[in-house]
Amino acid sequence: MEKKLILISNDDSVNAPGLHFLVDTIKDMGEIWVVAPDEPKSGQSSSLTFNAALRITEHEGYENARLFSVSGTPVDCVKLAMHNIVPRKPDLVLAGINHGSNSGNSVIYSGTMGAVFEGCMDGIPSVGYSLLHHSMQADFSECVPYIRKITATVLEQGLPEGVCLNVNFPAKVKIQGLKTVRAARSHWTEEYKQYTDPHGKPFYWLTGRQVNEEEGNEETDLYWLDRNYATCVPCQALQNASASDIAAVARMLESGK
Amino acid sequence: MEKKLILISNDDSVNAPGLHFLVDTIKDMGEIWVVAPDEPKSGQSSSLTFNAALRITEHEGYENARLFSVSGTPVDCVKLAMHNIVPRKPDLVLAGINHGSNSGNSVIYSGTMGAVFEGCMDGIPSVGYSLLHHSMQADFSECVPYIRKITATVLEQGLPEGVCLNVNFPAKVKIQGLKTVRAARSHWTEEYKQYTDPHGKPFYWLTGRQVNEEEGNEETDLYWLDRNYATCVPCQALQNASASDIAAVARMLESGK
Repeated sequence: MEKKLILISNDDSVNAPGLHFLVDTIKDMGEIWVVAPDEPKSGQSSSLTFNAALRITEHEGYENARLFSVSGTPVDCVKLAMHNIVPRKPDLVLAGINHGSNSGNSVIYSGTMGAVFEGCMDGIPSVGYSLLHHSMQADFSECVPYIRKITATVLEQGLPEGVCLNVNFPAKVKIQGLKTVRAARSHWTEEYKQYTDPHGKPFYWLTGRQVNEEEGNEETDLYWLDRNYATCVPCQALQNASASDIAAVARMLESGK
Repeated sequence: MEKKLILISNDDSVNAPGLHFLVDTIKDMGEIWVVAPDEPKSGQSSSLTFNAALRITEHEGYENARLFSVSGTPVDCVKLAMHNIVPRKPDLVLAGINHGSNSGNSVIYSGTMGAVFEGCMDGIPSVGYSLLHHSMQADFSECVPYIRKITATVLEQGLPEGVCLNVNFPAKVKIQGLKTVRAARSHWTEEYKQYTDPHGKPFYWLTGRQVNEEEGNEETDLYWLDRNYATCVPCQALQNASASDIAAVARMLESGK
């Protein structure tokens, strides 16, 4: 039987330790093709490049893994990989391990999850892995059994149509288990630091911290990450509201002035 | 009674005709604050700027409308507007009118919808408007009665919690009516044109066309846009899968190896 083809991307760049840790963790499970941004692209969401040329560069890979960088975003990487790099349609798209959280509302800003949503929209089972620690020296070792189990299960069983996974791991702790939940509603507060430039003009720099709007709700990822569990959030790419919400809006607009 | 505060952004930049057409269309409905990117930011999704300074510039506005640009993405515009520009929390966030479609799977790449999702996550009723025509000379006049009705209805009644709207208009036709539906599953095909640079090396440029995977399905936006109807797609920002899909994944991972 032909080996399963696994495409791996990320948003921290082709040089990120988390990417190489992920390759090492699952490289016995299939034929590995890595296509990642040539520079860090955190916070790039599902952005794509349509007003500039894209370049592909092959790098020295591993035994059983080929390694490429693309001069674009995580979505560009997955699109260009599908179109021009991998020899056949992947059986699985993975992204990560991200250096930093993609829990709560961070999922919508995440370039890592941008790559995952892109794989999902191509009909490929897709999973993003993230560690709640920004350091390039972060220790990913606690994640290994969880990544191996989730990856093997999804490779074997697939995922429901239109569904992909956003997996987050707590950092610097013994992980207590895995909870499959939904993303907590959250927002960021105190978002900008204001400075004054040498010419007396103001400028602004993004900062702030995430506030959980559903404190104490066991159905959400932030609840379990706070308690040292890993979380798996099943996601949909297309952002359609529920059927009942669609019906409610339809009634509202029909009766509106 | 205090006037309603309406924040307007887009992704085509502060200079785009569609933005100013939207302001003109609804400026009698409230106190208007426009905060838009200083340069075009199409295809930027929910990307944000955290490794660079952001600038705010005020421009000459209108009667009853103040006008600012931000040196960042649509999400940066909405975040910085909330934090540092508008005098109180907006009652409504609008984005557009986008020069080009945000129907089908384009919603996830759209900077216009990035601004809308940002407003939605702040708990503000938020609506994106897009015309299926890329030209800067596009004719938006057919959209007026629809934009006025939807904007007035949402200002008066709000939206279900966590839900925002993605409204698309067909171009160059008499619009037949408005349908509230979901986004069609779709994908892009023949996505890259390959070139050879003067040094003999390849580069790639994004192109291609959207393929509707749900041809003939009346529940979807692409079906009705093809038939010259405007469409309103209720969306959720957080991309959570349905409760039944979350339960299915939980069972799968519990039974996995």
